[in-house]
Amino acid sequence: MTPHPGPVLTVGETMVLVGSTRPEPLQHSTQMSLGMGGAESNVAIGLRRLGTPAAWIGRVGEDSAGDLVERLLRGEDVATTCLRDGGAPTGLMLKERRSTMETRIWYYRAGSAGSRLAPGDVPDDALRSASMVHLTGITPALSPSALALTLDVVARASQLGVPVSFDLNYRSSLWTAQAARDLYLQVVPRCELVFAGTDEAEILGCGGPDAETAARRIRDLGAGTAVVKRGPQGAVAAAASGTFSAPGVPVEVRDTVGAGDAFVAGFLADHLAGRDVATCLATATAVGAYACTGDGDWEVLPRRGDLARLTSTEPVVR
Amino acid sequence: MTPHPGPVLTVGETMVLVGSTRPEPLQHSTQMSLGMGGAESNVAIGLRRLGTPAAWIGRVGEDSAGDLVERLLRGEDVATTCLRDGGAPTGLMLKERRSTMETRIWYYRAGSAGSRLAPGDVPDDALRSASMVHLTGITPALSPSALALTLDVVARASQLGVPVSFDLNYRSSLWTAQAARDLYLQVVPRCELVFAGTDEAEILGCGGPDAETAARRIRDLGAGTAVVKRGPQGAVAAAASGTFSAPGVPVEVRDTVGAGDAFVAGFLADHLAGRDVATCLATATAVGAYACTGDGDWEVLPRRGDLARLTSTEPVVR
Amino acid sequence: MTPHPGPVLTVGETMVLVGSTRPEPLQHSTQMSLGMGGAESNVAIGLRRLGTPAAWIGRVGEDSAGDLVERLLRGEDVATTCLRDGGAPTGLMLKERRSTMETRIWYYRAGSAGSRLAPGDVPDDALRSASMVHLTGITPALSPSALALTLDVVARASQLGVPVSFDLNYRSSLWTAQAARDLYLQVVPRCELVFAGTDEAEILGCGGPDAETAARRIRDLGAGTAVVKRGPQGAVAAAASGTFSAPGVPVEVRDTVGAGDAFVAGFLADHLAGRDVATCLATATAVGAYACTGDGDWEVLPRRGDLARLTSTEPVVR
Amino acid sequence: MTPHPGPVLTVGETMVLVGSTRPEPLQHSTQMSLGMGGAESNVAIGLRRLGTPAAWIGRVGEDSAGDLVERLLRGEDVATTCLRDGGAPTGLMLKERRSTMETRIWYYRAGSAGSRLAPGDVPDDALRSASMVHLTGITPALSPSALALTLDVVARASQLGVPVSFDLNYRSSLWTAQAARDLYLQVVPRCELVFAGTDEAEILGCGGPDAETAARRIRDLGAGTAVVKRGPQGAVAAAASGTFSAPGVPVEVRDTVGAGDAFVAGFLADHLAGRDVATCLATATAVGAYACTGDGDWEVLPRRGDLARLTSTEPVVR
Amino acid sequence: MTPHPGPVLTVGETMVLVGSTRPEPLQHSTQMSLGMGGAESNVAIGLRRLGTPAAWIGRVGEDSAGDLVERLLRGEDVATTCLRDGGAPTGLMLKERRSTMETRIWYYRAGSAGSRLAPGDVPDDALRSASMVHLTGITPALSPSALALTLDVVARASQLGVPVSFDLNYRSSLWTAQAARDLYLQVVPRCELVFAGTDEAEILGCGGPDAETAARRIRDLGAGTAVVKRGPQGAVAAAASGTFSAPGVPVEVRDTVGAGDAFVAGFLADHLAGRDVATCLATATAVGAYACTGDGDWEVLPRRGDLARLTSTEPVVR
Amino acid sequence: MTPHPGPVLTVGETMVLVGSTRPEPLQHSTQMSLGMGGAESNVAIGLRRLGTPAAWIGRVGEDSAGDLVERLLRGEDVATTCLRDGGAPTGLMLKERRSTMETRIWYYRAGSAGSRLAPGDVPDDALRSASMVHLTGITPALSPSALALTLDVVARASQLGVPVSFDLNYRSSLWTAQAARDLYLQVVPRCELVFAGTDEAEILGCGGPDAETAARRIRDLGAGTAVVKRGPQGAVAAAASGTFSAPGVPVEVRDTVGAGDAFVAGFLADHLAGRDVATCLATATAVGAYACTGDGDWEVLPRRGDLARLTSTEPVVR
Repeated sequence: MTPHPGPVLTVGETMVLVGSTRPEPLQHSTQMSLGMGGAESNVAIGLRRLGTPAAWIGRVGEDSAGDLVERLLRGEDVATTCLRDGGAPTGLMLKERRSTMETRIWYYRAGSAGSRLAPGDVPDDALRSASMVHLTGITPALSPSALALTLDVVARASQLGVPVSFDLNYRSSLWTAQAARDLYLQVVPRCELVFAGTDEAEILGCGGPDAETAARRIRDLGAGTAVVKRGPQGAVAAAASGTFSAPGVPVEVRDTVGAGDAFVAGFLADHLAGRDVATCLATATAVGAYACTGDGDWEVLPRRGDLARLTSTEPVVR
Repeated sequence: MTPHPGPVLTVGETMVLVGSTRPEPLQHSTQMSLGMGGAESNVAIGLRRLGTPAAWIGRVGEDSAGDLVERLLRGEDVATTCLRDGGAPTGLMLKERRSTMETRIWYYRAGSAGSRLAPGDVPDDALRSASMVHLTGITPALSPSALALTLDVVARASQLGVPVSFDLNYRSSLWTAQAARDLYLQVVPRCELVFAGTDEAEILGCGGPDAETAARRIRDLGAGTAVVKRGPQGAVAAAASGTFSAPGVPVEVRDTVGAGDAFVAGFLADHLAGRDVATCLATATAVGAYACTGDGDWEVLPRRGDLARLTSTEPVVR
Repeated sequence: MTPHPGPVLTVGETMVLVGSTRPEPLQHSTQMSLGMGGAESNVAIGLRRLGTPAAWIGRVGEDSAGDLVERLLRGEDVATTCLRDGGAPTGLMLKERRSTMETRIWYYRAGSAGSRLAPGDVPDDALRSASMVHLTGITPALSPSALALTLDVVARASQLGVPVSFDLNYRSSLWTAQAARDLYLQVVPRCELVFAGTDEAEILGCGGPDAETAARRIRDLGAGTAVVKRGPQGAVAAAASGTFSAPGVPVEVRDTVGAGDAFVAGFLADHLAGRDVATCLATATAVGAYACTGDGDWEVLPRRGDLARLTSTEPVVR
Repeated sequence: MTPHPGPVLTVGETMVLVGSTRPEPLQHSTQMSLGMGGAESNVAIGLRRLGTPAAWIGRVGEDSAGDLVERLLRGEDVATTCLRDGGAPTGLMLKERRSTMETRIWYYRAGSAGSRLAPGDVPDDALRSASMVHLTGITPALSPSALALTLDVVARASQLGVPVSFDLNYRSSLWTAQAARDLYLQVVPRCELVFAGTDEAEILGCGGPDAETAARRIRDLGAGTAVVKRGPQGAVAAAASGTFSAPGVPVEVRDTVGAGDAFVAGFLADHLAGRDVATCLATATAVGAYACTGDGDWEVLPRRGDLARLTSTEPVVR
Repeated sequence: MTPHPGPVLTVGETMVLVGSTRPEPLQHSTQMSLGMGGAESNVAIGLRRLGTPAAWIGRVGEDSAGDLVERLLRGEDVATTCLRDGGAPTGLMLKERRSTMETRIWYYRAGSAGSRLAPGDVPDDALRSASMVHLTGITPALSPSALALTLDVVARASQLGVPVSFDLNYRSSLWTAQAARDLYLQVVPRCELVFAGTDEAEILGCGGPDAETAARRIRDLGAGTAVVKRGPQGAVAAAASGTFSAPGVPVEVRDTVGAGDAFVAGFLADHLAGRDVATCLATATAVGAYACTGDGDWEVLPRRGDLARLTSTEPVVR
Repeated sequence: MTPHPGPVLTVGETMVLVGSTRPEPLQHSTQMSLGMGGAESNVAIGLRRLGTPAAWIGRVGEDSAGDLVERLLRGEDVATTCLRDGGAPTGLMLKERRSTMETRIWYYRAGSAGSRLAPGDVPDDALRSASMVHLTGITPALSPSALALTLDVVARASQLGVPVSFDLNYRSSLWTAQAARDLYLQVVPRCELVFAGTDEAEILGCGGPDAETAARRIRDLGAGTAVVKRGPQGAVAAAASGTFSAPGVPVEVRDTVGAGDAFVAGFLADHLAGRDVATCLATATAVGAYACTGDGDWEVLPRRGDLARLTSTEPVVR
């Protein structure tokens, strides 16, 4: 495939993120950080830092939280289309770092501006100029109109010849496994790239004795390449050229939230640069690991030059 | 009136409060404080600090935010009934201190646990043991079931002979002035005490050339005593014994949010202690002013002994 | 034993706690956290979080530090009796996290309100309604009147048939090993449960080649069950039904202060629920380990549901 | 004049800003905020918030400080050209809030990337597409090449018919009054708009018994309109249509740094919108006053809707 | 009088200071600052900043708090003799900024190292090399040995011809007015300089209809010059050359604690430089006012150059 | 060698240090710590904490940053000569903790006061009274005058019989390896002690298959004892009495910056106390390891008593 020269286009909900500043039950927290989060915009930022153009379309409220989201995305050089929805507030995530062992996330996105995404929000021009479209399984779980948007974008991308990437990203708080599976089965066959965790492969009915099998089964549904993320254990991919795997990259972990999005960004960046699947997997696991070495869902996403650090022994640069 | 020996009972929604720590647009805030807020629980805490027993009934989610609300209210020695609603999250307020001149508040309470308050939530026993019931115009604006609860509590309190206090507390983001007025007109005639701001008196159709007139017109609707709050300008009250006024108490202001609730707590505490209207008004303005001398919606509510400070000149106590 | 239906009653000194917010010598610290600490109230909170009713009796000053202690304990739903002592201040702990390897604690409790605990402070009614009384070896070291209180409570509990739990908790800064031993020998024979570290067993004259031997020797003094805490190595117990041991539970440690109190709370909660000794030990080591996974002496004490986390691999809950 | 449809183009040095978080001598500060500052970019942001397109060209290093500047400017929707200079670091400002009465600023900009601005850095295309060029007297004081750039841009703008705005912004730490005056006298006659403080008017040789006289004298040098800023006392302007003045707008001040840049942004925004001089002056004083109501050199710059707040009495918006 | 060439020697207790970081009841504070405080060391630092050599002798514990005190005093270039007392801890102050109107201070100094100051702690050599000895009425209130030290130092200074300065500094939490008066009457007649507030003049039996009368009556007890501090209203002095007064200096106040010590430092610095009483008074009121313009008991004490700021209108220095 | 009774004298540049407070790219940092850093002053403080007298001579600006440096060094009881240079600012370091894997440091020291060190700055008296002079390879890289100072001090120390210690401390941002080597070759032969890392030994032309070889080759250049630091792997030394090595000391690392200076301080302290090379090496590795157990370049440097902690298992001291 010859990559289009345009940006990777992502569509989804990005929320303000209110998060703990140290490990303790939320009831004892008194200082919180304020930022932003969203699986699709995390991927867009990750791509941008790796040198790949990226664009994001989403809805936020006509409120200060929307100003924050717009300002942060623009700051990251993502081509940002923040549709301002006067009838609903910007969504919000509350993130508790309950102990050194556990993070809990609650969403305040019911009826949010982001959940009101609808088919008309992604114009044909934006699709046509994209080198790829990246979607997740979160958006269709937000509302009927957002589900319609997801299917509509997939259909139009297919018509326009724009390849689609899809991360299953199952959220049990938003919908049932059955509803998710129904959607997945409509989307996956039309994708050039599909990303799933082991549990998500099960929901899709593609579970197996090991990740390689799961990947192959997802690919058998019609996806060009299927990638199964195994967290700290690495990842595998089933492609036309065979099955590949990459081990995890050991790091001192601070925050694992966003690591999956970082992985996807790493894979997409190399995929669009025309690199082979093994290289894409290796970059993806490196980017995913790097993203865990500091606080925040996306703030520690690496630039290309940062990745060498994963294998370096000199901790100080002067 | 001989006061019942029991607590003042309040019912309403209390939310976690995410607030700015310094004056700047939210988009530049990076550190937020985490606390709690709710007009009715603010009043309950204010009463408790002034020595009056207080009880609060409300709904929160089965989540860490609900743990926080329950812990903070218990800590203030308010007899707390936190009904845990597994089907909805605890509400949330986002408070931007946009500049030294302005505070903006956004609510994430649509579909919240607190909005699911319903008639059965306040048992007869809780009503019977109360010296007074205090309600606000926020609760009926949350949902049809919460509106039903409000009317139900007012009706049952009347039957049981428990006096009712009501603060109009109009919130334009929750309902229309017309809907509010309809409710007000059902509640106000059955109240021993009614609290309103000048604007709220207008909504009620009781506006006038001055606050005294407004208070008298509210009283003419059937309320025992009508109190009109004038912010830094003080307050007036129309009672059976005549019309009274109290000037504002000048202080170095940090945060005015919650000052109205503090005012109500001051008035109720003295009212239940059998003091005359002029004394109630003076205490109310003092408590309201004191509450502005530090950050937070309720944290700086005074104890009786603190009020002397408003007229003291010695800033340090060793 | 059929447990009484009442709360576990604890008696002791709780202080305000001024602590480092990061590892560095105190002379370089500029920001400190403000909280509360006390071995007995830590146990009470630990019990409450595990679902066991708990009550605490202690003295604080008529000062803002006393307000803080009372508010925090109430917030944790411990039935709190804060006797206000106008003649002495609330005690204070200064906690230096000197490096990642060491924490130092200094007490400002000489002549404190808490040290003025005296026999009359625990009324018979409080004892009678308790399912168990838990005391520590800290209280008798505070002052002659507090020592008298300790012996008096043990004696009256025996008369009333209320079982006694005792944690040796030796504090070398408060008294000599000899004085401690004299007291221990009066208390231990009357206890249903005794908790000791290896060093404390030595002070008691019950040291041995291993923890099992130490536990048996303590039991031989007349205690119903003797538990020896071995920190990260786990714990052993000598009971009528035999000798039991539990290994340590590995966790990422942030702060070990309070882990011993957490252990005791875990053991007591299961003991009062009628579980066998092996289960009590396992719960105790789990609760003790969990409490180390965040900052603070008690803030990270777990609820029952949190304990599953110790063996879970999924770090994020949505 | 018919305004060009393009952005206001500014050129200058923007630095990372390390600033005090509370009033105290720097030697006692332990926590500092990290941000960005620069007179020209402050004006660009101010314009953007008021709805006027703005572009900025400057040099930063190939370092993390440069990343920060680029990210913050992009976030504000300023069309940003951050030339990356591998041979010099991004400049830095150290800002001490020494007491409630005084702020001191030290620059670490000698040899900085920003000081290496040179004539070729502003291409003709950027000039041609601009509705106006705004420059300050800081840039020519940075280095000979930056002085050459300033004169070159003024000359080319004149040739291309792009109007020039100039703020004298004298910095005694960078050059002598004599050197400044020499430059001013070359630039001022070619400007459509000139901004000066009373002291700067003196340096220019245009001092007078009052600000009106100073403004007229500056205008007599050849400027289209001359504006003299008088801080909290307001401002005056001498234009073809006469002399105008606006009183200061009283506010609760937090930080006056950047108020002059805010003033300029307010004037330019209205000027480009074709408003008359009196309106421009009124907006400028309002924007300048608003910018003092929070911390930071530019973070509190207002949007149009915020200006109403200066005359509002309701401090809370829900 | 020809001043000795040596330092002003002060003797007293300096404690670690745990203080609020914003106005709110202590029970809601979660972040505290950590520093140091002590009336005598405040004066020593104030003198040093004004260019006058100063020495301090005191006791601290062999603990990290003592390390902090020693490090901070040394850092201020005060010739510091920190006697390390292994038998007692360094004293501690807890400072609550209860609201914008009130600060409360609690001392944890009973039995502290500082209270164990005793006659032998100030060697003759230290006295002989001093230009003046400055003592306060706090030290003799700490313990019998500290009272003995106070009288002993006054007596030896008189013998050695070293002038004595004394600030009454009455602390009602440490002793009775009667006990204080007894001590004052022994010290005041032997002093070259005596400082008192209006209330302290009353305790001394020198109250009067106005501050001038009080100052004259104190002087009539035998003091060389008597200075009465009137807080924001300024101060008066009765000297051999007559009676003088200085008005208060208006400033934006952040923290008044330590203002009295700052005043004394200002007076002593000019007195030792041979300036006349009117000048000493003017400097004293300026230094006292300046010290209120930031947080902390001594951190904002001015250098000579800072005093011009009190009358300047330019808030920013570049 | 009989050590001189005087302090170890160091000469160099000390800067204010603006550093990250948590691991994240600088562009996302909003709160920074403010402190001080400099290789030579780090060594001086390290020595002082270990009980060895130390003196430091350097230049800072006549600015608040210089006040900070002077105050902090004095506070550590280092005999401090802060030459105030009115013509240049105090240098500044910006320290980014980019992730848990990497720290980046940028210097703002071009043209700084510290870089203007010149031969006359170290008087003969200061040299004569020193027990040893410690210099680093940073100072000669700052400027020609600082290079001249370095050579001048080495020459005069030799003449006066004061032993010289030298740490190569190569900084690639300040000069080339060739220039460094030229200087090293002039200094090393005149030193009693030379410290180098493995990379620095290469620059000096003394690299080898292992650290022992490198140390011997450095010694062959004429140094009395050559020490090669191997970071977490420990260190080796080549001395007249043979070759010695010490393994690394494992610790939980927070910040490795300054560990090399800590190592040097440990070696020098024991060397001056007359201990043998093996003991010096062991102390050096222990001090270096300890310094990594908290944040900051020097704040966590240990006292003698702290070193036992490295092998202790009891994390809490009461």
